[in-house]
Formats: sequence, structure tokens, C-alpha cells
Amino acid sequence: MGADQPLVVLNQLGEVTGRAIEALGPGLRVINDEHTPAWERAHEADVLLTAPRNGWRQAPKAPPAGWPGRLRWVQTASVGIDFFPPWIFDVAQVSCARGVAALPIAEYVFAALLAHNKALDTRWVQSSEAWRREFQRAEQQPLGLLHGQHLGLLGFGAIGRQVAQLALAFGMTVSALRRSDAGEFLPGVRRAESLAALLAESDHLVLALPITAETEGLLNAQTLAHARPGLHLVNIARGRLIDQEALLAALDSGRIGAATLDAVYPEPLPDGHRLYTHPAVRLSPHLSWSAGEVQQVTSAKVLDNLRRWLAGQPLLDVVDPAVGY
Amino acid sequence: MGADQPLVVLNQLGEVTGRAIEALGPGLRVINDEHTPAWERAHEADVLLTAPRNGWRQAPKAPPAGWPGRLRWVQTASVGIDFFPPWIFDVAQVSCARGVAALPIAEYVFAALLAHNKALDTRWVQSSEAWRREFQRAEQQPLGLLHGQHLGLLGFGAIGRQVAQLALAFGMTVSALRRSDAGEFLPGVRRAESLAALLAESDHLVLALPITAETEGLLNAQTLAHARPGLHLVNIARGRLIDQEALLAALDSGRIGAATLDAVYPEPLPDGHRLYTHPAVRLSPHLSWSAGEVQQVTSAKVLDNLRRWLAGQPLLDVVDPAVGY
Ligand SMILES: NC(=O)c1ccc[n+]([C@@H]2O[C@H](COP(=O)([O-])OP(=O)(O)OC[C@H]3O[C@@H](n4cnc5c(N)ncnc54)[C@H](OP(=O)(O)O)[C@@H]3O)[C@@H](O)[C@H]2O)c1
Ligand SMILES: NC(=O)c1ccc[n+]([C@@H]2O[C@H](COP(=O)([O-])OP(=O)(O)OC[C@H]3O[C@@H](n4cnc5c(N)ncnc54)[C@H](OP(=O)(O)O)[C@@H]3O)[C@@H](O)[C@H]2O)c1
Repeated sequence: MGADQPLVVLNQLGEVTGRAIEALGPGLRVINDEHTPAWERAHEADVLLTAPRNGWRQAPKAPPAGWPGRLRWVQTASVGIDFFPPWIFDVAQVSCARGVAALPIAEYVFAALLAHNKALDTRWVQSSEAWRREFQRAEQQPLGLLHGQHLGLLGFGAIGRQVAQLALAFGMTVSALRRSDAGEFLPGVRRAESLAALLAESDHLVLALPITAETEGLLNAQTLAHARPGLHLVNIARGRLIDQEALLAALDSGRIGAATLDAVYPEPLPDGHRLYTHPAVRLSPHLSWSAGEVQQVTSAKVLDNLRRWLAGQPLLDVVDPAVGY
Repeated sequence: MGADQPLVVLNQLGEVTGRAIEALGPGLRVINDEHTPAWERAHEADVLLTAPRNGWRQAPKAPPAGWPGRLRWVQTASVGIDFFPPWIFDVAQVSCARGVAALPIAEYVFAALLAHNKALDTRWVQSSEAWRREFQRAEQQPLGLLHGQHLGLLGFGAIGRQVAQLALAFGMTVSALRRSDAGEFLPGVRRAESLAALLAESDHLVLALPITAETEGLLNAQTLAHARPGLHLVNIARGRLIDQEALLAALDSGRIGAATLDAVYPEPLPDGHRLYTHPAVRLSPHLSWSAGEVQQVTSAKVLDNLRRWLAGQPLLDVVDPAVGY
């Protein structure tokens, strides 16, 4: 790029982000286009800002003609890159939005843990008879307490870290597994011996790892057999981490006591799928990331990376195609 | 008491506690009796261990004949002493179970805050149509986030402290009021200017103070008028802190956005009371204290105080009859 040629950004993240980019300086030109598939305009732009929603479901298996065009960098508004075709990595760098949803997702996890432990939805009363009955029941069948329970974390990235911090504040014990065996944990968080050990020691197990060749179907009949009986499984990552038939069998047997699933496979599940109606399952439609501020936080993160690019600094949260996250 | 006379404990807290007391040593004699009103056996014992349930509802207004007998100390298994008649203070010392339920109650509060903010019970799906609808809605009507919201605490004792610690871990800002104006708060917890200011600055206000002559009806039409519009009010303390008619009016007008009430007045409310069915109210039957371990924790606390008494050390959590807690 000559010094006189502006950096062209193909922006699919909305016009608010587009205007914020233009305000970065005169060396930038923005094309706002959320609808045309990115590969059809790849020859016009240096940088692509995109999200899983922008036509990627219709992406061809093989790299389409004109890809990657003059693109040198793709920044996604999602953490996972599994919604994109593998040829997205034909550009020099792909970076993701790691961390933007860690706060809301950690809160979702504790909403799920407390919904499971306290089950307040079964304790609210609307009559004096119910008041007396549930008052008695609170003595005989006390509410669960997170304090002193064990939380297991499979994955210890942006989300895992945030969940661990809250768990420690609740007085839970915490152990975790991550891919890089040498990677550090937080003070108070123990490295689990193995996936089997993690399953065996946890009252609640939270899946917070990407879907990769290594992690697909990691929770299956064989591994679930190690679960502490009654384990509460929380999946805020990806549906394909779990063999869903094996999960249903474990739920039927009571080995797994309950599952809170924000991600399933496929999304949505076909009607009539047993995960919709199993009494021990709570299923939400991939919304644990949702919070009023997430769009602004994402936008700020994208702008920060653009500033780095303009200043010749290394980008943050570059995805390693070899490992897949 | 002569050195040869054992200390007689009238124990109304159950035989498990009774046996643990006997194991303290030969200088103790235990009378286990949960059913006879305490005042009828007051002449036989030096110490009374009792709970609001042990016949106190039928206590006469005036001190009954034989009270306080030879009793010198009453230890209650509750935090509040409002269930007991005022003449319970005719003994030298009354101590309470301050703190035993602080952990479960703090968890109840966060179950309530997250139930309010995330409203996951309205987001679970059981069909592909619901999945698609709720997936869309998560963008248009995002889930609430505790992070960045303000928590107000009216009362900063055992429960308030525990709630504050969790709130800080969630990244909430926190302010509080307590009776002793000079009393300290935790790092990160600000002293509110006034009750009006506390109401005006809070997204969630938690009542964690005793019912006393000063606090009865503290939340009334006049004070509730200062609330930040949409305030979520959580009462885990006592029903009479709130003028319930004023609360209903504030809920109708939307000034108060929602109320989670673990305590009401009277308990239970008469059938047909609007607090049972108001769409913005969640009502639980005085169970926020409930957890598997509370009985053991209470028992341990009582034993600890007994050991102190035997060793001639000052008792913990003595109630000041002048202020009422
Ligand atoms: N439901 C939603 O709305 C939503 C929103 C955002 C993200 N997500 C999902 O959540 C996942 C995690 O997000 P994040 O922000 O925490 O990602 P992140 O910061 O990239 O962290 C990923 C973690 O997974 C670990 N990991 C990778 N492969 C592993 C393996 N084979 N075994 C054990 N651990 C492994 C990584 O280990 P190292 O630390 O050693 O690298 C890292 O700790 C994302 O990949 C995405 O799929 C879902
Ligand atoms: N729902 C349930 O199951 C349940 C269970 C346990 C307790 N409770 C209720 O919760 C209440 C609080 O429990 P706790 O263990 O936290 O009690 P605590 O340790 O005795 O603390 C009481 C707090 O209230 C403050 N306070 C007293 N009068 C006040 C006033 N006029 N204005 C402002 N603050 C005032 C005190 O101020 P200072 O710090 O200045 O003394 C103290 O901070 C109990 O009294 C009981 O009624 C309910």
C-alpha cells in the first residue's frame, strides 16, 4: 500500500462501527456492506470486519474465485471461528473477539448454577397453603449451597478465568484443564489431573473451550462415565463438544444430574429432540453472551486492533489455524 | 453455682445438639425438651438454648410466673429476636445466632438478582420455533448484566457484608447504610448519604437489618418515592420493614420495578393478598437461610458460646435490648 492510498476496510459490523472507524483518521476508507458475501468484495479491501451472520452459512466448501483478493487481515466479531469455512485462513492473519462476552457468560453460568442449586422457581408461593408447605419443605429439603462445592472448568481462557474468579468469591473450590499444559491458572485454581479426574471431582462442570479437531465429542459415553454422580454440566461453548446421545443416556441414568445447555448441535435442534423436553435439561438459544453493552465492547475491541494495525503493532487475539482457536 | 453443682442447660435445639453439649464435660447437665414452653422449666436450668419455633408464639404478653427462674443466659438459634416476647431480656444476657445464615442468604440474594436480570426462566426453549424466536430476542432485548450496576445495602451486619463481597466480585458498585454511623464498611463499599440517596442510586436494594422500633415501616410511601425508577427491592430480613400497601402502589406505578420478598407480614399473608400474585413480585416463604449445613453451623456456634461461658469468657453476639438486635 502506498502512503497515498488509504487502507480500505470492508465493514460488516454495522454503520455505528463504520463511522467510528472513519473517525480514526483520513488514512482509512470504509465500505459498509453487511449483505454481500465477503468473498465477492475481497478484491476491494485490505481488511475485513465480519461476523458469523454475514452470509457465511452459504459459503462454498472450496475457496471461491477472488478469495482472498487483496485482503490481508480478517477480524471476526465472534470468539469461535468454527462458523467460518477453513479457507478464511488464506489471508495473512485472522483475529477474533476473544473476551468480549466473558463477563455476561460468567454471569449466565452463575445464574445457571444458582437456578440449579436453589431452584427458586419451585419455591415461590402464591397462597398461604403453598407458603406453609414450602416453609416446611425448606427444613426437610434444604436449598443447595454453592459455598464448599466444586467447580470444574474445561478450558481456561477469557471465559474460564472469569467464571473461576466468581466461583472463588462464592467459596467454591475450583480445578481446571487447558490445552497448554504449562499454562498458568489463577491463585486458588488447581490444575486437574485429567479429564476423568475433573469429571469425578466436580459438582458443576463448565465447558469453556473451542470446538477443534481435538475437542469434538470430548464429552462422550466413555468420559461421562467418570462423572461424579449427579454432576451438573454447563455448556456455554459449542454443542459438538458433547455426544448428545451419550449425554441423554447419562441423564436418564442419573449419572449426570442436570445439564444447562446454551449450545447444542445443530442449532436449532430438530423438533421432538429429547433435549428439548428432558426434565433435567435447561436449554437456551445461544444467548449467554447477550448483554446491553456487548456490541459497544466488541466495537471498541475491533477499533483497538485497527489502531494497532495502523501503528504497525502486533494484533491482539490472532487465531492459530493449526490449533483452531 | 457451687463447684459441685453442674451447669444445667435446657436445650430446645434437638438431641444432636444435646449430645454435643453433654460431651463438653462432666460439669454439664442437659435437659432436652423442645415442647414444654421454656418459662415452665426456667426454674430448673441456668442456660436456655431456644428457637422461635419452641412454643414462643403462645407466649403471654407479661412475664409469666416463674420467669426467669434461675436462668442467667438465653441463647437463640435465630438472628432476629423479634419472635420472642420483650421479657426474654429479664435474664442477664441474651445472645443470638448472628452470622449462621449469612452465606446461604447471600447466595439467595444473588439467585434473586440473577433471576431478575437474566430472567432465564423466560428464555429456556422447548422447540425450534422458540429457539429461533428467543435467539432473535436476545439481540433486541439483551439480558441484564450485574457488572456495572449498583447494589444498595440497608444494614451492614453479617448478611450485608457477605452480600457486599459477592457484589464486588461481580463488578457491581456498592453503597450501604448501617445504624452506627461511625461503623466501618469494606474496602470498595461506600457509605450512602442517606436512605433517600441509597434508594436513588441503587439498581438493587437489599434489606439486611433487624426489625426494631427505628426500622419498622422504614420503606414507606415517602421513602419509596426516592427510588431510582425500576429499582429491584430484595427483602431477606423482616416483613414489617416495609409498608406493604405503599410497596404495592410503587410496584403498580413502576417506581419499584420488582420485589423479591423472603419476608412479609404476617407470615403467611392472608389468601388473596395482592403480593401473592403481583406480576413484579417473587415471594418465598422465609427460606433464604436454608442450606444443608445450617443446623450444624448453628450447633457449632451455640457450643462455642457455651465453651466461652464455661471458661468465663465474654459471650459472642450478645443482643442489646436497648437497640433491639
Ligand atoms: N455461547 C456463546 O454465546 C459463546 C460466546 C463466546 C464464546 N463461546 C465459545 O466459548 C469458547 C471459549 O471462549 P473463550 O473466550 O474463553 O476462549 P479462549 O480465551 O480462546 O479460551 C479457550 C480455552 O480453551 C482451552 N482449550 C483449547 N483446546 C483445549 C483442549 N483440547 N482441552 C482443554 N482445553 C482446551 C484453551 O487452552 P489454552 O489456555 O492452553 O490455550 C483456553 O484455555 C469459544 O471458543 C467459543 O466456542 C460461546
Ligand atoms: N430471612 C431469613 O431467613 C433471615 C435469616 C437471618 C436473619 N434475618 C434477618 O436479617 C437481619 C440482619 O441479619 P444480620 O445477620 O446481618 O444481622 P446483624 O449482623 O445484626 O446486622 C444488622 C445490621 O443492621 C444495621 N441496622 C440496625 N438498625 C439499623 C437502622 N436503623 N438503620 C440502618 N441499619 C441498621 C446494623 O447496623 P450496625 O452495623 O451499625 O450495628 C447492622 O449493620 C436480622 O436482624 C433478621 O431480622 C432473616
